[in-house]
Amino acid sequence: MDHFSSQLLERAVNALSDLPGVGRKTALRLALHILRQDRESVQTFASAILDFRNQVKYCKVCHNLSDTDVCEICSQPRRNRRLICVVENVQNVLAIENTQQYDGLYHVLGGIISPMDGIGPKDLEIDSLVERVSAGDVDEVIMALSPTMEGDTTCFYLSRRLEGLPIRLTTIARGVSVGDELEYADELTLGRSIVNRVSFHQSSN
Amino acid sequence: MDHFSSQLLERAVNALSDLPGVGRKTALRLALHILRQDRESVQTFASAILDFRNQVKYCKVCHNLSDTDVCEICSQPRRNRRLICVVENVQNVLAIENTQQYDGLYHVLGGIISPMDGIGPKDLEIDSLVERVSAGDVDEVIMALSPTMEGDTTCFYLSRRLEGLPIRLTTIARGVSVGDELEYADELTLGRSIVNRVSFHQSSN
Repeated sequence: MDHFSSQLLERAVNALSDLPGVGRKTALRLALHILRQDRESVQTFASAILDFRNQVKYCKVCHNLSDTDVCEICSQPRRNRRLICVVENVQNVLAIENTQQYDGLYHVLGGIISPMDGIGPKDLEIDSLVERVSAGDVDEVIMALSPTMEGDTTCFYLSRRLEGLPIRLTTIARGVSVGDELEYADELTLGRSIVNRVSFHQSSN
Repeated sequence: MDHFSSQLLERAVNALSDLPGVGRKTALRLALHILRQDRESVQTFASAILDFRNQVKYCKVCHNLSDTDVCEICSQPRRNRRLICVVENVQNVLAIENTQQYDGLYHVLGGIISPMDGIGPKDLEIDSLVERVSAGDVDEVIMALSPTMEGDTTCFYLSRRLEGLPIRLTTIARGVSVGDELEYADELTLGRSIVNRVSFHQSSN
């Protein structure tokens, strides 16, 4: 245990070392960094965290993080509202938004089916997805889940729940990463990318 | 640039990614971690940081971080007040305190002489050290600085400034680390540890 001569320092280090991936030494380094900042900056830092924790909401439609009841993405009129992309979490929304290749809406499940971690369909926003799609006005549901065992299980479960609804159900393409050397791609990925080959003229956009 | 759909999230991520060693992805992970904590914990976290920044002081005697005008270490009556250990920074005080091998006082320079970084003697708490030692009642000044070029320069400068004062001036021992294999120690360290060899009976405490 550390022998701090200042309770204030000790409390700050304890608080910072509660953050994931931050050990005692890093926490001390962060605390001393904070001490070098002017008071207004530290106040802004603390307010940003408190406001985020106390005021952020989950969008009533897609369950993405939002400042308002319905999030910015769901509210944008230029978005294609007939297209829903199902993702595991908020980070995935951000990752897809950053590609600037998608103009539809999202549906954030808030996790992935994982019996090992005790996460079943009831723990996720699956009922609300089925409801949303059943209400009509949706042409396609894209399942953008990680190509893992849990992701595949969730895709399979979703496909069962959405069966019979008049929509096109798709998953994002799995294949060799852009810029990857073919010889280093794993067999499963390479195999899938051959089976799911696309027309050359279609692939280049 | 990230396309956040929430200003609150964006502000939190920006604030967290201002911390040293925290990138955008880590900041997002930390923000989502904070969102999972209850409100009281996040309030405690923010208060710990704000209180530390706004209330912590530097000890008037040794310049260590302190909750009061004179720090806990300088105030402890059981400390040997005739012994002063000069260190570069607050982390070093903590490191030495954690050894539980030292019962004297400290003097925190607040840096080290480094012409390359534009840090000269005037930027450090050297005058106050000379004053403190000149006031008498001090038997020994230990220079516990890093065995680097800058550390050695600072030691040399301090020895000049403290010349003529009736004290014993020492530096911490440089030598082979406890638990290290002799054959892997660098030549300079091994050389010094031979030149500065200590009596076997003295070394074992």
